[in-house]
Amino acid sequence: MSQLPEPIERLITQFERLPGIGPKSAQRLAFFVTTMTQEHVQEFAQALLTIHQELMICESCCAISDRSPCNVCGDPLRDQRMICVVQDTRDMIAIERMKSYDGLYHVLGGAISPMDGIGPDQLHFRELLQRIVDEKVEEVILATNSSVEGEATALYIARLANSFGQLKVTRIAHGIPVGGDLEFADEMTLKRAMEYRRPM
Amino acid sequence: MSQLPEPIERLITQFERLPGIGPKSAQRLAFFVTTMTQEHVQEFAQALLTIHQELMICESCCAISDRSPCNVCGDPLRDQRMICVVQDTRDMIAIERMKSYDGLYHVLGGAISPMDGIGPDQLHFRELLQRIVDEKVEEVILATNSSVEGEATALYIARLANSFGQLKVTRIAHGIPVGGDLEFADEMTLKRAMEYRRPM
Repeated sequence: MSQLPEPIERLITQFERLPGIGPKSAQRLAFFVTTMTQEHVQEFAQALLTIHQELMICESCCAISDRSPCNVCGDPLRDQRMICVVQDTRDMIAIERMKSYDGLYHVLGGAISPMDGIGPDQLHFRELLQRIVDEKVEEVILATNSSVEGEATALYIARLANSFGQLKVTRIAHGIPVGGDLEFADEMTLKRAMEYRRPM
Repeated sequence: MSQLPEPIERLITQFERLPGIGPKSAQRLAFFVTTMTQEHVQEFAQALLTIHQELMICESCCAISDRSPCNVCGDPLRDQRMICVVQDTRDMIAIERMKSYDGLYHVLGGAISPMDGIGPDQLHFRELLQRIVDEKVEEVILATNSSVEGEATALYIARLANSFGQLKVTRIAHGIPVGGDLEFADEMTLKRAMEYRRPM
């Protein structure tokens, strides 16, 4: 056996496609699957297969959901005047966990990144502008990541949205995390924390 | 959406069952699957399903393989007089990669660990003894891990195997890794390196 059995090689290739899983981890995971019961393996395969069958993109906010409109967009109690723009459905879920924001969302599906060939057309920008035009939106909260791409995306939306006159455009705050030690904060965070200091 | 869509929750549960994957990674992986093409997802599910269908335990050395006897046991050119005892099929593959050992293997399927309820009966010991009795084995090389369990297992086999008179029983060497810096070696490794020093 100068190499691995073919079925294991195949599974390793599959695991290697996942983000953050290198060759060594992929091999460990594939061998772990050989020790799982047939029932568990079937459940796993089934869970993978149903992902595309049962999930869709919400026609309003573009979030990944099992229904359209999604639970948030379909909830009449949510504040229809606020749209929080995020890069990813996971960001929306993180904000939902906080249980204190009751407006709507818009999921871009990424950030503008010319290096990766991702421009506004590859993201759900058109849908966002349509919503600003059609719906009674009063505030757009930009909650894209604080990476270079996220900031560029926020700036791009801010410029577009500000052209709508009445519309309030805000950016979520960046600074020292609550409970975070000042001495461990990185330079950029510290710089932001100083820059955006507020009177008290 | 106070919680994740049900199909994603299901997939997260599946990923969390894998070793070394926590809740955060499982969520990241599940969302990544939503971005994969349907074709890739199907390939992944198929690779999982074929694992149990196409893999078996080699009737001779107990390694996980796609045939029985496995490629090594079925190769008449391998030296039938040596059996290298390893804990896991992965260990066997690591030794095969070296391309300089041409004997046979025996995969125990783990190490003796009373804490986890694993005794000799839960491992492929009986098969090993049978091979020592039936085949023309002249040397048993113990290549179990250097953990407490691996050492205990090696000691257990050594005692059993030594009762077969003629049989030579050896343990792979432990010491400073080649290219490793002495100052970074842990205490146990250093202790072994001194203990097993050899004349030159």
